[in-house]
Amino acid sequence: MTEKLAIGVDVGGTNTVTGLVDTEGKTHGERSFKTREYPYFEDYVERLVQDIESLRRIAPGTELAGIGIGAPNGNYFSGVAENPINIRWYERNRDGSQGAQILTIPFVETVKKHYPSLPVVIDNDANAAAIGEMIYGGARGMRDFIEITLGTGLGGGIVANGEMVYGYGGTAGELGHITVRPGGRLCGCGRRGCLETYVSATGIVRTMLEILADDTRPSRLRSVPVEKIDSKMIAEAALDGDELARAAFEETGRILGESLANFVAFSFPEAIFLFGGLAKSGNLLWEPTKRHMETNMLRNYKGMVKLLPSGIDRANAAILGASALVWKELRKLERR
Amino acid sequence: MTEKLAIGVDVGGTNTVTGLVDTEGKTHGERSFKTREYPYFEDYVERLVQDIESLRRIAPGTELAGIGIGAPNGNYFSGVAENPINIRWYERNRDGSQGAQILTIPFVETVKKHYPSLPVVIDNDANAAAIGEMIYGGARGMRDFIEITLGTGLGGGIVANGEMVYGYGGTAGELGHITVRPGGRLCGCGRRGCLETYVSATGIVRTMLEILADDTRPSRLRSVPVEKIDSKMIAEAALDGDELARAAFEETGRILGESLANFVAFSFPEAIFLFGGLAKSGNLLWEPTKRHMETNMLRNYKGMVKLLPSGIDRANAAILGASALVWKELRKLERR
Repeated sequence: MTEKLAIGVDVGGTNTVTGLVDTEGKTHGERSFKTREYPYFEDYVERLVQDIESLRRIAPGTELAGIGIGAPNGNYFSGVAENPINIRWYERNRDGSQGAQILTIPFVETVKKHYPSLPVVIDNDANAAAIGEMIYGGARGMRDFIEITLGTGLGGGIVANGEMVYGYGGTAGELGHITVRPGGRLCGCGRRGCLETYVSATGIVRTMLEILADDTRPSRLRSVPVEKIDSKMIAEAALDGDELARAAFEETGRILGESLANFVAFSFPEAIFLFGGLAKSGNLLWEPTKRHMETNMLRNYKGMVKLLPSGIDRANAAILGASALVWKELRKLERR
Repeated sequence: MTEKLAIGVDVGGTNTVTGLVDTEGKTHGERSFKTREYPYFEDYVERLVQDIESLRRIAPGTELAGIGIGAPNGNYFSGVAENPINIRWYERNRDGSQGAQILTIPFVETVKKHYPSLPVVIDNDANAAAIGEMIYGGARGMRDFIEITLGTGLGGGIVANGEMVYGYGGTAGELGHITVRPGGRLCGCGRRGCLETYVSATGIVRTMLEILADDTRPSRLRSVPVEKIDSKMIAEAALDGDELARAAFEETGRILGESLANFVAFSFPEAIFLFGGLAKSGNLLWEPTKRHMETNMLRNYKGMVKLLPSGIDRANAAILGASALVWKELRKLERR
């Protein structure tokens, strides 16, 4: 039987990275270009197709199974990305000048024009990570789990009964926008107290500043210009024994742990996977998160839910997640 | 074709009510006995079987499709009820004296001994209500919805992708034990700040007492002994224009609305159904709940999620829910 390979596309504000991936999660080749060099969406897709074709050529004798796209605000149901953060595409006027900005990006429809007979699917980053976890990672064989992506913000992908929970309009799992502190910190979404204003690379910086204001103990971060403080710096200070930096991780772990305990009461996952940059802070975040999660869980859940690092937490995780969308889609089509 | 009918059993602390129900949700007959008159579980099941057999006889020429049991802490996966609140059953010693209390009640196994060839299923009250909603009620045709049962406590039943969300151990959807106020009111579960300590028939009484303590305005409830105040009395006072009683509903609706907005960010249901006694307070609870839910939702969910009264909110709703477990199970078996 001809080996099948999937294309995974990671649409980022800086780079668009495309990979050719087998069913085991092995990447056979990768291409990349600068997203911003193609301000017209039609040109962007033409460029993307060049990379896909270039990847096809490196694996003669294999068959392309489909194209999976991971994009900010990607919507599996409608096949579009709704006003993806940090990326702007425009229409081209007939006279060649720049037209209106496109807010609803028709990814699936446009890519499908080039590959009419292939499955082409899109999803948001967190759902792609969850599906990657299910196909190649630590969630293989699990029917109920939650993927938490920790980066600039916090994303969620929820799997129940072996199926991605998309909800009525395709955008379920906005766990970063669960209100954890009514009236709390202002969020980019315009509301207050969202989980991601506390638990994310930017959230922990805000917590650090609050602690520097509230506490009088010394901290090496007091000598850093406020706008230069980042999560990596806080992690390094904490590892060097800076007490206030450690307190920032404790507080971040407390709010994450409390929130995970609530998520468990909702969908009772077998495991919760932490994925992304902040998840790599190792035990600094892990230990308080696990502790507060266990402390806050309802009795019948205690000791029942595993907190795990993502099993696909590698350099090309985003491509893997996107490519996994293809294998998930094929499984779904087969069952019909 | 022979008409099929399902048995629905509502296991309550006071009464055990059994009904014979058709696929449309019409009850063809009902039997009832006092749960406490049968302290030995084996006797209890013998008595239950008598009622089932009595119901079978009223519908000659029909076929029994199965037996559905709704019970506190009923677990669909394991077929047992774990230490159901307000109900105690005991083993009988060989000499006929009372033995140890049975904490894990083997409902399905014991009933199945009498009906080995029929599907026998158990679930908790809130899940049974959700499945009743899906089979006979307002959720027919919906693939994603949440059922909230409002009584002494608050229960949740979550349906995603057309399937009940049971989670890893069968007890997902414990929405009454989502922590909404960290460090808040003491809950029967031993933790603090659980949703049901604020939003339930008992929760609104606690809120009323707080308001009576905090506010100095007159209220007819000031003349009532504290332990006599109940949710019905607060509703009547509010309907008569008692400002503090109205404030109790406003506050209850605020916390419920905020919580529902969070639930939406999790599973994005097409509708949320409110079921049970407190849900019948009509607009008193409805209006503030709806308002706070809309105010607190993330932009992309606003105006997208219906808040609806249960479509099976009738005297025999519990039996209907239990009987619906049978039709749901048969659908599942057919699909295999």
